[in-house]
This record gives sequence, C-alpha cells and structure tokens, in this order.
Amino acid sequence: MLVVGSVAFDTIENANGSVQRVLGGAASYASICASYFASPAVVAVVGTDFTQQDRAPFVKRGVNLDGLEVRDGKTFHWGGSYDKDFNTAVTRFTDLNVFQNFNPVLNDIQKNARAVFLANIDPELQLSVLNQVKHPSLVACDTMNYWISSKKETLLKVVKRIDVFFLNEGEARQLTGEYNLIKAGRILLEQGVKYVVIKLGSNGAMLVSNKGLVQLPPFVLEHVHDTTGAGDTFGGGFTGYLASLEDWNNLTAIKRAMMIGNVMASFTIESFSVDRLANLSKQDVDQRLEEYVSMLKF
Amino acid sequence: MLVVGSVAFDTIENANGSVQRVLGGAASYASICASYFASPAVVAVVGTDFTQQDRAPFVKRGVNLDGLEVRDGKTFHWGGSYDKDFNTAVTRFTDLNVFQNFNPVLNDIQKNARAVFLANIDPELQLSVLNQVKHPSLVACDTMNYWISSKKETLLKVVKRIDVFFLNEGEARQLTGEYNLIKAGRILLEQGVKYVVIKLGSNGAMLVSNKGLVQLPPFVLEHVHDTTGAGDTFGGGFTGYLASLEDWNNLTAIKRAMMIGNVMASFTIESFSVDRLANLSKQDVDQRLEEYVSMLKF
Repeated sequence: MLVVGSVAFDTIENANGSVQRVLGGAASYASICASYFASPAVVAVVGTDFTQQDRAPFVKRGVNLDGLEVRDGKTFHWGGSYDKDFNTAVTRFTDLNVFQNFNPVLNDIQKNARAVFLANIDPELQLSVLNQVKHPSLVACDTMNYWISSKKETLLKVVKRIDVFFLNEGEARQLTGEYNLIKAGRILLEQGVKYVVIKLGSNGAMLVSNKGLVQLPPFVLEHVHDTTGAGDTFGGGFTGYLASLEDWNNLTAIKRAMMIGNVMASFTIESFSVDRLANLSKQDVDQRLEEYVSMLKF
Repeated sequence: MLVVGSVAFDTIENANGSVQRVLGGAASYASICASYFASPAVVAVVGTDFTQQDRAPFVKRGVNLDGLEVRDGKTFHWGGSYDKDFNTAVTRFTDLNVFQNFNPVLNDIQKNARAVFLANIDPELQLSVLNQVKHPSLVACDTMNYWISSKKETLLKVVKRIDVFFLNEGEARQLTGEYNLIKAGRILLEQGVKYVVIKLGSNGAMLVSNKGLVQLPPFVLEHVHDTTGAGDTFGGGFTGYLASLEDWNNLTAIKRAMMIGNVMASFTIESFSVDRLANLSKQDVDQRLEEYVSMLKF
C-alpha cells in the first residue's frame, strides 16, 4: 500500500500544552496507522534536518521508507494553535521548505502497488502519482479546503479516478455547493467515486454510496489531548484495512473500515504527534474495536 | 405513563412548503410516539377551538386524553420558519393563549403514574407535576434554552428529581457553562440525574452516565420534510420504551431507548405535523429498528 503525502514537523499549542517540531504530516499519521493492518510504504520528501530519531516511529511500525526522498533544505514545518475545545485550528505558519518542489517519482515496486492512499497534498501531485501507478485495485484520496479553493478543476480530475473519497463536512459542501451532506455525496458519486466518506469530527463519519448510506459514531473519549492528524489517521486506517482484504468492494468491508478509522483516530487524539498511535499493541487496538462493536450492539 | 407539556397548533414554512394551524406541541409528538410502546396519557390544555378532528391522531393511537383540559379561549399557536437545510428555526409568533394560565392538576389515577415525561414547558409546572405524582419509578425531562435563560434556578430544582434529562448541545452548554459535552453531562450527573441524553440533531444522540458513555448515530434519511417535533418524538419514544420495561435502569435498556428515540424521530421528520408519526404500522417501526441494528452490525 502506497501512502503519498506530507511528512512534516508540527509546532502545536493547545489547552493541554505545546510541542515544538514534533513528527507530523498527513502521510506520517496515515502510514503509521495503516501499519496495523497492511504494509504501507511512504512516498514523501523531507529535508536534511530529518534525523534517524524522526524516522524511529516509522521504523518501529515497519513502514517502508524507500520512497522518503531527502533533499537539501529543511523539512516542511507547520505551526498552529487550537482553542480550548478544538473547534478551530489557527495556522500560525506554513513553511513548505523542501515540500515546495516535491515531485514524486515512483520506483518499479511502487508503480505496482495494489492500494494507494493519496493523502492531503496538491491534486497535481495526486494526479501525477495516479499516472505512475499501473493497476491499483484500490485508490483512496483525501483533500482540504485550500485545494478546493485553488485547484478545484485538477481535484475533480483526481476525483474521477478514485474509489474512496474522504472529506470533512465543510469540504464536501465547498466542493459541491450543496449543504445537505447526502446530496453532496451523491454529486461526488456521479463523478465516479464509489464510496464518499464524510468525516464528521467528534460525530464520527458518514458513508454515501450506491450500496447504502451509513452513519457511524466516534469511539467516545473522555479526554482529548490533541486532534492534529485525526482525519489522516482515519483515512490511513480505513485504507490500510481495505488493502488487507481480498475483496474490499462491499458494504461489509467499508463499514468495518469506517469503524477502524474511527477507533484508530481515537488513539491519535490522546497525545501530541504520533506518540500514542505509533506505540499500540495489537491488544490495545483489538480492545477498542471490541468496545466499539459492543457500544453498538443492542 | 404521563406526558405533561404543550398541545398546540403550528404554522410552519420551510423549503418543502407550508402548513397552517396543524397539530403540534411537545406533548403531542411525545405521547403519540410513546403510544407505540406504552400507554400514554396527556396532561395539557387546549382552547375551545381544538376540534374533534384535532384529537383524531391521539384517539387513533389510543392516547388517553382525560387530562386534556379545555379552557375558554384559543389553543397555543406557534409560527416559525426554517432555512433550506433546517439549520435555524426562526420563531415568527408565539401566541400562548390558554397555555398562559396552564396549571396542571392531576387526578388520582394520574397521581399514581409509574412513568412521567416532563416535556418542554415552564419548569415551575414541571415541579408542580412532580409534587403531585406519588411514586414514579421513572421521571424523564426535556427543556429549552428559553427556560435555561429565564428560570435556571427552578429548572435546577427539577433536575435534582429526575432520572433522565434530554438536552440538545446548545442547551447542555448553556446550562452548565461547559463546552465539552461529556463534561457538561458529568456536571448534570452530579445534580442527581442518572442518564443525561444529549440530542445531537442530525448526528444522533450521546449518553453521559455513570454506567457508561454511548454515542449513537441517527437513522439516516435521504429526504427530510420538516424537523419540527423531532426532539419531542425522541424523548417520547425513549421514555415510552423504558416505561414498558420491568427494569429500565440499566445500560442495555437505555441504549435501546436511544435507538428507539432516533428511529421514531426519523418518521416525524418525514412529514409536517404528526402526519407520518401517527400513522405507522408495527411493521413500519420494526423494519426501521431492524435496519438501524443492521447498519450498526459488523
């Protein structure tokens, strides 16, 4: 499974404290999460300031880093702060650094990937990756408001070629011009997406598909430490789980993938960075999945 | 099961059309919904303009109307409109009429009610009813922002004497001063409430209790006709189901009650007034409950 996106440093401030230059980036959260279900390989770029220690969480989780290009310069660095209740994230700086000239070139093994997760990056790059992968049986894609504003046409070209599309509520509305999330989802289905997964933050996620509509709650957590990376974790766990299946294209598999996305995101938000996500035992994961299933059993 | 609250006329305008002077009121939705699970009796007041035809939905559902007082004057009449996506309801008029001097006096049978649903009315009246009921084994209560602003102290006296408290997100935050819904719920548990049920609108409902935290999604509907009464239906179905049980005070029962509240509310929002809610077959209800259980099965 290929995960294309950003590997970055984050500097974050919220009501629970602050951290400087910790591991972040959509591809980091997504690949580390996917490692609990599949064998992910990252395609991303970092600067020469990205140390062995920064690689440790990937190494620990067996994430393949052959596609982690190192360029002269600094690693992408994002700084942001959250209000008390994680309602609004304010970006304080975005230093793209080496990420500015990122141009993913896949090797032969990567070109034969069966599953691809196009994490949140410039849709031009997502398209470039899609053009290089030969016969993927599963392509999932995430995006953000910035690309919907600035590169909508390119993003829509990507959308025509993917199986699973992750968006949050605001993004779904912005991209389709439709407030109602089911109607927004149906507009995207008409573009050829098989499964539109609308991430609802603390309310879980909703699936709009021609096979059915499903809404699932989150794994309920009493204490949230930091929500950075929750959506990337959701997408990585979702796609990683599907990548592990012989046949992922059915509602049973998709529902389990949604559950896994929700449950894995609950670990991410219990710490800054990937501190919690990268250090789970199989038992930790299984226990929460069981609790989730049990919460929804009548 | 006693249902105390308003029986009213509603004049509503939304994107799907408009209706004038149709049956509305919290006690109407709640009791008609409860009738699918228990034997509800309404305690409310109407004017002499409330006709036999207006009573028909109650009669059809076997709701006891012995406690429906008729006073000289007009029935409570609410007028409101919704924006295209039911995000905001704008009240256009509130003619309290005979409701202004409502003072519920229970008869001997009503005083012995085992279950009481205090639908959204003045907390002074809720307290007055509680003082008349002798040994209720289940007391559930709903409220609204207006009472939290104007009669918070009285409402808190009610809260100390109830088992189940229904609030929406905004009300939970307004009443407790705490944004985080779980923390808000815990503050209310400290007041003696056993189960705090936070209604999340199109995102279902969350339970905060000392027996566990649960979040359940809504029954997903493609087309919403009118959301008036959805919360009252939720509370009525929830309480009616619990009232039908020998032992309602356990998490299994409460979860099923939440499911029933969600599913029954989905019928209410498929039409104006109680047009859909009052005309369901057992099969209609059972089928949606099955679909809901199936949506949440992995």
